[in-house]
Formats: sequence, structure tokens, C-alpha cells
Amino acid sequence: MLKALLYPKNIAVIGASRTPGKVGHEILANLINGSFAGNIVPVNPSADQIIGLKCYKTLKSYGGTVDLGIVTVPRQNIMDVVQSSIDAGVKALAVITAGFRETGGEGARLEQKMAGLCRAHNVRLLGPNCLGIMNTHEHMNASFAGVMPESGNISVFSQSGALCTAIVDSSVTGHFGLAKLISLGNKADLTEVDFLKALAKDDNTKVIVGYLEDIVSGDDFVKAAEDTCSIKPVIILKAGTTPSGLKAASSHTGGLAGADIAYGAAFRRSGVIRADNFQALFDYASALVMQPLPMGDRVLIITNAGGPGTMAADAVEKSGMTVAALASNTAAALKGKLPRASSTGNPIDVLGDADPERYAVALSTAQDDESVDAIIVILTPQAMTRPAETARAIADCVRSDKPVLAAFMGGKHVMPGNKELFAAGLPVYNSPERAVDALKAMYEYSVWRRRPPRIVTRFRVHRRRVERIIARQLRTNRTHVGDIKAKHILSAYGFRIPEGHLASTTEEAVETAEQIGYPVAIKIVSPDIIHKTDLGGVKLNLSTADDVRDAFDLMMLRIRQVAPEAHIEGIYIEKMLPRGMEVIIGMSRDPQFGPMLMFGLGGIFVEVMKDVTFHLAPITMEEAFQMLKTTRSYEMLKGTRGKRGVDFASIANGLQRISQLVTDFPEIIELDINPFIVGETGTGTFVADARMTLTQKKTK
Amino acid sequence: MLKALLYPKNIAVIGASRTPGKVGHEILANLINGSFAGNIVPVNPSADQIIGLKCYKTLKSYGGTVDLGIVTVPRQNIMDVVQSSIDAGVKALAVITAGFRETGGEGARLEQKMAGLCRAHNVRLLGPNCLGIMNTHEHMNASFAGVMPESGNISVFSQSGALCTAIVDSSVTGHFGLAKLISLGNKADLTEVDFLKALAKDDNTKVIVGYLEDIVSGDDFVKAAEDTCSIKPVIILKAGTTPSGLKAASSHTGGLAGADIAYGAAFRRSGVIRADNFQALFDYASALVMQPLPMGDRVLIITNAGGPGTMAADAVEKSGMTVAALASNTAAALKGKLPRASSTGNPIDVLGDADPERYAVALSTAQDDESVDAIIVILTPQAMTRPAETARAIADCVRSDKPVLAAFMGGKHVMPGNKELFAAGLPVYNSPERAVDALKAMYEYSVWRRRPPRIVTRFRVHRRRVERIIARQLRTNRTHVGDIKAKHILSAYGFRIPEGHLASTTEEAVETAEQIGYPVAIKIVSPDIIHKTDLGGVKLNLSTADDVRDAFDLMMLRIRQVAPEAHIEGIYIEKMLPRGMEVIIGMSRDPQFGPMLMFGLGGIFVEVMKDVTFHLAPITMEEAFQMLKTTRSYEMLKGTRGKRGVDFASIANGLQRISQLVTDFPEIIELDINPFIVGETGTGTFVADARMTLTQKKTK
Repeated sequence: MLKALLYPKNIAVIGASRTPGKVGHEILANLINGSFAGNIVPVNPSADQIIGLKCYKTLKSYGGTVDLGIVTVPRQNIMDVVQSSIDAGVKALAVITAGFRETGGEGARLEQKMAGLCRAHNVRLLGPNCLGIMNTHEHMNASFAGVMPESGNISVFSQSGALCTAIVDSSVTGHFGLAKLISLGNKADLTEVDFLKALAKDDNTKVIVGYLEDIVSGDDFVKAAEDTCSIKPVIILKAGTTPSGLKAASSHTGGLAGADIAYGAAFRRSGVIRADNFQALFDYASALVMQPLPMGDRVLIITNAGGPGTMAADAVEKSGMTVAALASNTAAALKGKLPRASSTGNPIDVLGDADPERYAVALSTAQDDESVDAIIVILTPQAMTRPAETARAIADCVRSDKPVLAAFMGGKHVMPGNKELFAAGLPVYNSPERAVDALKAMYEYSVWRRRPPRIVTRFRVHRRRVERIIARQLRTNRTHVGDIKAKHILSAYGFRIPEGHLASTTEEAVETAEQIGYPVAIKIVSPDIIHKTDLGGVKLNLSTADDVRDAFDLMMLRIRQVAPEAHIEGIYIEKMLPRGMEVIIGMSRDPQFGPMLMFGLGGIFVEVMKDVTFHLAPITMEEAFQMLKTTRSYEMLKGTRGKRGVDFASIANGLQRISQLVTDFPEIIELDINPFIVGETGTGTFVADARMTLTQKKTK
Repeated sequence: MLKALLYPKNIAVIGASRTPGKVGHEILANLINGSFAGNIVPVNPSADQIIGLKCYKTLKSYGGTVDLGIVTVPRQNIMDVVQSSIDAGVKALAVITAGFRETGGEGARLEQKMAGLCRAHNVRLLGPNCLGIMNTHEHMNASFAGVMPESGNISVFSQSGALCTAIVDSSVTGHFGLAKLISLGNKADLTEVDFLKALAKDDNTKVIVGYLEDIVSGDDFVKAAEDTCSIKPVIILKAGTTPSGLKAASSHTGGLAGADIAYGAAFRRSGVIRADNFQALFDYASALVMQPLPMGDRVLIITNAGGPGTMAADAVEKSGMTVAALASNTAAALKGKLPRASSTGNPIDVLGDADPERYAVALSTAQDDESVDAIIVILTPQAMTRPAETARAIADCVRSDKPVLAAFMGGKHVMPGNKELFAAGLPVYNSPERAVDALKAMYEYSVWRRRPPRIVTRFRVHRRRVERIIARQLRTNRTHVGDIKAKHILSAYGFRIPEGHLASTTEEAVETAEQIGYPVAIKIVSPDIIHKTDLGGVKLNLSTADDVRDAFDLMMLRIRQVAPEAHIEGIYIEKMLPRGMEVIIGMSRDPQFGPMLMFGLGGIFVEVMKDVTFHLAPITMEEAFQMLKTTRSYEMLKGTRGKRGVDFASIANGLQRISQLVTDFPEIIELDINPFIVGETGTGTFVADARMTLTQKKTK
């Protein structure tokens, strides 16, 4: 995958320059200074030699084939250069030159033209407007970032070139080595999706780190990310997350779902570890690249000081993980081996005068405990503390079936310890909380890795019936689907809806009511009236024929007054539903990631508390249950203080059926069942009110 | 304050040792190596000279007076040594020796005895079980932490000695200087309160940092912290915060208020900045010690790279601060001075090739903008970037009326820039998010500093009436105060309660109901029945005389069946309240900080969503309003989607009245008004149900 770009045998610098400081000079110099083993071919029409290398007027005149061309020529020459490079048989191009899409109109058009040309000749294009590319294992620094970082197993792609330079510069002080570093630039051709796929197959890459500001194709991203995360961890910092996802008070799925929520749902689905800030990116990456995944959330803390031990325990609890309870034989074994004053609970306090040996004893013993999934080792630099020796003693007894992360607190004195730890493949942080955060990221990823296979249930439904309804709506350009039609659609997909019929006259209304049984609701039916309730077009809880008669006549009278132009199809007589808890389920279509399902408790819980969860469709049964469980109001569904719980399974079933409906019908761009009435366990659910919005356009 | 301890003229090391590695040797060596200017007096019964200093058999034999004695003798000699030091006229003691309260029983008793002896002679005692004390401005390292940190203006007290060593070790790499470093140890005599007071008056201390695991006296702490925070910032990391404050489903204030919530309330009241992790402590301290407080929350970002600028803007929005909108003349001025491709919005992008001058121009221009309260300057190390020169250019034009914080991203290449910035008094972080977090801490503190004067309203109330009710309850040992008595108490403090009377017979009940008007509720009155509702002792919404008669008879019958032993005082006939929103207000008494007031929306909002806020009593009107505003459900109170808001002022008034009640009557240890019924603006509030718990014991 992307062989010519990531592992080129030879590289041309097209636009190589004799002038130090110029990009075309610096990249050539970086390639040479980095000791790239393949041929390096400077191309410049007016130079014979640059930095001791023979220079060619055109790539063609070089004669041999070139895998990768790094292009640094001015924008006005770009099409000529790309064309001639293609003619010369180049396999991939990285265009450093800026001034394309990021400058708007003309630049954008030129970018499209260039990308089209490359695509037509099967030449892959990185950039334009990028920093270049590095492959440390091939000593290849085809970028204008000065220094090459240490070689390692973290690969990075970044939509910000400047961030690449910061990462390279951090790698030494941060003790992390890099494998590939890819500056994505404007992503005219190659995107995050291509690099996810390529890095998934790269043996030197054990962890992938990405910085993104947008994603080119949501579907492709989710698919590629899911495949890649099944092999190795992917950590992404997504910038531009604000304005915050949840908008002002709204009870519609569309009003509640923001882009940031969609990214969150896409990352969750595909196993991507999300970093909330720059520091977290490499805090997580270091842990993941060095240590095995934890198989559970039970954390043991070893410390030579009580305070920092408490800080770590606080952080573990806050993170939602568990402070492990040691097995009794572990505690007994520790008691025999550690000084009497040591604490052999969790945290294990090896005391302020702990020597390396004492750490080793505690760690070895604790590693054997089956009730421990991960270990945090804390060191504070006290009078007797020997950080470097302690680091070595720790490293010597780490068995690498459980993750061990270190928090060496301090600066100058602990530095030699940090170096030893990194050298031995142990991640180390300067505070217990950072170590715990990194462990939490590992734990969540390990849960994702061990998730059950995703099996999306296909229900038997009356798809043709829905096709007909939607076709009819769209033919007459009615993109809003009101309550009654929406219920017909939902009924065809297996939802229970209250019995009801359309009535045109008072007598028909009463007759219908008598037939379906009281109490009933009556609702105006008109394609011109969307907000029925606001116009007095809904009347609930009518218990007698007289009530129905009065309400029917009054509604007809009033509606004609307030909306004289509206075409009235009649009044719908509907059986009132049994009482139950009101929840909302719905769907809105994200421009990037397609249908997102929503669940929340009804009314104020959604409008005010914003207590809703989202998930990308299609959804599995497990995921549907997970949606219910991750709301804060979950306890209410479970039943509190003697009240019985509701019919969970039926809500989860409803979410899966919506998932199938909106997957089958991309014409549905928004859907709300609000309220969705749910009774006690075993009694099922009813659609009380529903609405949908259709589109004529193609959707995701 | 604590002159002998913090600024001693001369110091004795009692238990000085000739053996390197022993604490009694190391402390002496640290004092000498630190170049302490005063006399250093080693005391050891069996040595003539230690590290070149004449050694005395006892402190008395030294002859001269000694301000501070550092005690390192074994525990078994401690009382003799303390006594003889006192006899020799020592003014303060720091006891390094361990083995006291932390070991339980006997050690705790010995500690008390020692503290008592010191107190009796007006000798202040630091520790025992501590690391000692440092005063860098006096070159005094009276501790066994090896190196002395750089001199600076941050002072630290810590309940963990090991953390002191980590802090000292961090200070060099973290570029922060310290003034005083105090290891609190077991706090037998001197506590955080003493050092808050002392450091408040210390001219060399500009910021106070504390690490605490507990607080000795809540009231004293709040008082001292509030006084100190009015002069200089105090940042505290409180460890041991879990298990998390909010416990399982509960609708009682007592069940919802945990120790961590109490600490949070105490810190909020007293202006203490809370650090959630170790890194934050000095991130905040560095910003606060170097830069002025922001006068508002409008943040400007200057950057040489788009990505990191976006990351900073994300962080500002997430923090709740505002990404400043630049004044139009600023943007115009910038356009004239920066290259055409620069972005002159916010973030201001000075472009990847920005030289120091360009940063200076952007910063100078932005500083003049009155719509900017604070500035974050971001640098990434790109090809043309000169970090050190840029740092100097930035430093040269910082005007210090608005805070400027830097985020220099990278490692080796930006390090010289970091050094320049620190040297010039500009805090620098390795990520935009850390800089924004520090700025947020500054902003919150500045809001606290500018808060209006706290004026607690005293309402005219019938205090004597409450005294009588409480005295009667306690005389008969009835610590539970039921609904009706609780309402009488609340009524005496100005709460509106529904009209009602006790009835012993059916006819009396009907008569009462007729008199107060329907609908009514009836409630069993018995000191033996606490959970009335559970036993069928409450019946609501009775609308006719017949209803009252039937309900009365049925209730009497049933209660005698289910609780035959209960003494029945009668049945209370109470007017049903008008409808309104149900909220909860209450109080529970924290063992440390005394009465904590609670507010929350009723029912599930409290039980399930835990959407409650707490505040220490006594409370001001502003603080009461603030409590309402900080719930997530605040929008519901304000009114949503056309619904009118509720009578805020009346709820706030209720909170203030409870505040006065529980301040007047420490016997009340818990109080709940649930529900407290609130109508639309102007219609006031009613107590629907109330309960209190009393105690015979003395409370906070």
C-alpha cells in the first residue's frame, strides 16, 4: 500500500534549490543528511549540481525511474511539472507548494485539476500545501522539518504541518520514537483513509496518531478506522470541535445532534481512541506502544509515598476504573517481604526509604495476583531514593502480560530514572493522574477490541408499503411527513401504533370512536398544518360520543378561522394509549457519517438536561442497549425506589427497527418518535407521536 | 507571624549526627550547604564537632537563645528533648521524627502530650513526622530534602513530605521558584490555617500552593482562606476525594452531600483555586505568580499555525470563556502590519514563517484592544522559527496590564524560547490546552476577587417560638421533627405553609375542612410514625365532606392495624396547595464545614440526575441566586418554550431563611423541604412537606 510514497527506492526533489533556507534546498539537504539509502535526484532547469549531487533539468532527463517526486516549484509551474513528472514515470508525488484550496477560488480549481491529472495516471498525490513525509526506518526525511526524530513505532498523520514540526521536536524530550510522519496538507488525493489503511499494514507501526480538522468521507473513514483499530490502536485529536455539540433547547434529534457528537459516535463505533488535547495524544501513544492491553479495569498502585498514592487512587476512581482489591495471599506474601510499616493494601506503600529491591519485590508479587489487571508504579525522589536503579529493578521484573505504567514525580533527580524506564519500554509520566489517564485509554480500547461480533438484526418488515408512502409524498413534494403517515410507515416496520381512522364528518368521527373504544384523541389532518398542537388541532382524552362531537365541530370551526387556506383532509380519530413512561427515539442524518440514532428520556430530560445518546446506524442489539445505559437517566428506566423498570428490550428493539428503516430509506433525513410510550417490562412500546422529514436529494 | 519558624535568626539541630545519610546529619549539612546566615547549633550528647561546627551536649549548654529547633532524636527521647529545649528558651520546634499519630494508639498519645507541652509554653510545633522547612530568601534549608530550589515567589505547604521532595525536584525543570516550603507532617500543633495566615503576610510569597489530605478545623480554614485569598491566590490539591461525593439514589440532603462536595463548597466560598491534579498545581501557580489577573473572559489567540490555534479556541470554548471578537480598528491595524495571507481574526495567524518582529507587532496591536482580556501566544517550531528571539520579542512588548500566557509546542528546539519566557516572567506551557486551563483558573479567581461584598440578610423572625418547639422535642428525646412541627418552625421563619389543624374525631376533621376550604389533604400525626406515606397515613386531594369523613375513618382503622403500638395524636387536616413546580431546598451539616445548603429540582432531578448544588451557610442573596443558576435544570426554572419562569426570588429567599434558621439553631442537623412548591414569578413559594433532624450534641 502506498509503496512508492512510504517506501520509495529513490526520490526526486523537483524544484531543488541552491539557496539554503529555500524549501527546495532544505528538503534535499534533509534527505542527504538523513542518510537516505536510495537515489536522490535534484531537478532544477538552471543548476548543474546542488549539495554535491548532479542536478537534472527535467525528471525525464534523469533517465531512471523515480518512485517519489517531492514538488516544491512555484504554483504557476505546477501543472507543467506534474505533467512532466508523470511523463517521466513517477509513481507518487508529494506537493509541498502552497496556494491552492486554502486560498479559495482559483487555487481550489488548480488543485482539482492537478489531482484529476494524477488520478488519471494512477499517480498518488500527497498534499498540496504539506510539509512532506518521513520514514525513519528508511532514514528518509522527505520534508522540510529540520531534524529527523528517533526511530520508533508510532506513526503520525496530521492535517497541520506545524503540528508535525512540534511533534518531531517533542519526540526527543518526550522519549517517543516515530516510524512514519505524514503531513496531509490539503488532502487533494490522499487522505486519512489511505494512511489508515497503509499504516495498518506497516510492520514498523504499532500505534497510529492522527490530528484532523475534518474528514473527507465519513463512511470510508469509519470502515478504514474500524479495520485498522482491529489490528492496532489509533488515537486521534479532532480539532474544531466547538461550538459545543449540544445546541440550545430542542427536542428534535436534528437540533440536538452536532458535528462533534457525530465525530464522537464515529470514533466510538470504529474503536478510535479520542484525545482531548495535545498532551494526551502522546501520553496515550507511549503507553499503547510500550505496554500490553489490560484485560480488565482493576488497577494496583505501588508507591513510596502516601500522598501520591492517594492521588492515583482518586484518579482511578474518577476515571471509572477500579482500585483493585488484592487477593489475600498476595497481601500475606507482601507482609512477609516488606518492612512492617509498609502498607500492603492498595496502594502498596513501600515507604519513603524504599530501595530498588523493595520496589521489585512489591511489583513481582503483585504481578502474580489474578485480581490485578494493571499496575501503576509511583516514585517520589526522597532522601534515600535511587531513581535510576529503581527504574532498572522495575524493568527487570516486569513480565509484560499486564500493563505497568510509571509516575516518577519530580524533575532533575528522577530524570535518569525516566530514561531507564523508557529504554526498557516502560512509559513514565510526571504525575499519577497522567499515568491513570493513559491507562484508561488503554482499557477502553481493550474493551473495544474484545467486543462481541457486530450482528445487525434484519427484521421482517413491509418495505414495499413504505416505498409507496414515501414515493407518493415525494411525488407531491411533501417532504414533511406528519404524525399519521409517519405512524403508517413505522407500523410497516413493526412498531405498535394506536388504532385510528380518518373522519370527514362529525357523525363519522363519533362512529369511529364508538368502534375503536374510548378514550380517544382527535387530530387535524392537513398537509398545510405542521404544528397541529399550536393551532388547536389536537384534542386528547375524549371519553364520550358527546365529547367527540363537540371537539370535532369546535376544531373544524377554529382551524378554518386560523388557517382558512389550509386544505383539510379530515380529522383523525385515534385511541388513547395506555399510560407509560415517555421516551424519545429518533434519527438525524449527519452530512459526514450518515444516520445517527438518538435516544433520550422524554420532555425536559431532552430539552433541558440534554440527556441523550447517539449512535451511528446500523445498530446492533448490544449497541442499542448500550445507548440506553449511557444516559444519566438510565436509573429511571431501571426503576427506582420500589418502582418497576420499563420494557428496555422493546426500546432497544425500536432503535434497531429505526436503524433498519433509515438504512433502507436514505430519503428519510430526520425522524422523531416523541413520545415513544414504554410500559413495564414485557408490555412493549407504542408510538404516541411521530414525524419525519424526507429529501429528494441523495443522502449518506 | 510564626517568625521563629519561618525567619529564624539561628537554628539548632537537636539530634545532629556525625553519620552521613542519617537525617540528623543531612539536615545539618543542608543548612550549612544552603549558606544559612544565622548561627547553626548542632546538639548531640556524644559528639564534640560535626561538619566543622562545635557541637553541644544539650541546647541549654549552648548558652545563647535559639529561635528554631529541628528535632531528629528517636521517638523514645522526644519528651525529654522537647522539655529541655523549652527550658533552654527555644521559640519554635520542627519535629522530624516519625512514629506518632500515624502509627496509632501509643504514638498518638505521645504526640498529644508533646503538643500539649509546647502549647503550655507558647512554643509552636511543626510536625511531627515531617520533612522540615525551607525559606529560600534566607538561604535556609532546614529539611532533609537534598537540594534547595531556586528562589521565587511561590510558597508551598504540604501534608505529604514526599510531595515536597517532588516539588523541589520539579522546580528546576518546571522553571518555578519557591519562597517557603513547609512540610506539615502530622499537624499536631501548626496546621494549614496557621500557614495560610503567616504566608498571607509574607512579602516574598505571591502565590500559595497547598497539598492537603484533611483539614483540621473547617471554620478556621474557611475564615483564614477567605482572608488570604483576598490578598493573594491560594491553590490547593485536596487528595482523598473519592469515593465520589454523590452517593446512590437519595432525595435527602444528607444523602446527597459528601465530604468532597463540602470541600468544594468551602473552597468556592473562600476563593481557593482547586487543582484537580498535580500538574495543574504549578501550571496555575506559574501563571498566577507571573501575570496579572484578567478582568474578563475574552481571550485572544496569536499563533504561527492554524491547527494549534484551533486547538486553543476549542479549549477556550470548552472552558466556558470566550474567544474574543476583535475590535474593527484592531483588525484594520493588523491588516496593515501583517502579511496579506495572515488571518487577522481570532486566532490571529501570523503564518508559519513568522519572525520575532511579526509576533511583536501582533501582540502589541492586540494588547491595545479593549475587547481583549487575556492573550495566549502559540509557537510551533517551523523551519524559519526562532524560538528564543521570538520569546524575547514577545517579552519586550508585554505590557502587563493583561495576562499573556505562552504555549510553545515542541521540545528541544523550543527549549531556549521557554527559558527566555520564564526569565522574562511569562508562563509557558507545551500545549495550548494547558495554557487555557491555567488562564481559566486565573479568570475564576479574578471573578472571586471582584465579587460584591458578602452581605447576609437577617430576616425578622419568631426565634423564641422555634426555641420552644425544639426544646420540647429534645426534652422528650424526639430528634425527628415531622412534617407538621417542621412547618411550624419554618412558618416562624417566614415560610408560607398551608393552613391546617389537628383533628381527633371525624366530625372535627370535617369541620376543619369546611372551615379552611376544599380540597384538603389529611395526614396522620404520631411521633412513632416517620414514614407516613408508606403506612397509608397520607391522603391527598379530598374535595367534599364525605371524602374527608371516609378517608379519616379508613386511615384510623388501617393505621391501628399496621401500627397498633403507635401513639396517635390525631389527623392533620391541611389545605391542598395550588399547583406549581416542585423543588427541594435543604440543609445537612458537614462535620468539617458545618451547615451546607442544598437546592435542586424535585423528584427524579434530585434522585436520579443528582442535579443539585450546595453552598455553605450563611448565604447571601447573590449566592442563593448563584445556587439556582448553577443547576443544569436552571433553564426549566427560567421557563422554556413559552412557559413562564418561576418565582426565583422566592426560592432564593427561602434558602436565605433556612440559612438563618440553621445558623441560629445548631441543634438542627438536617432539614429538607421537599417539595417546596414554587409558582410563577411574583406568586411566591409554599412548603408542601418538610422534615428535620435534631441532635442533643454540639454541632458545627
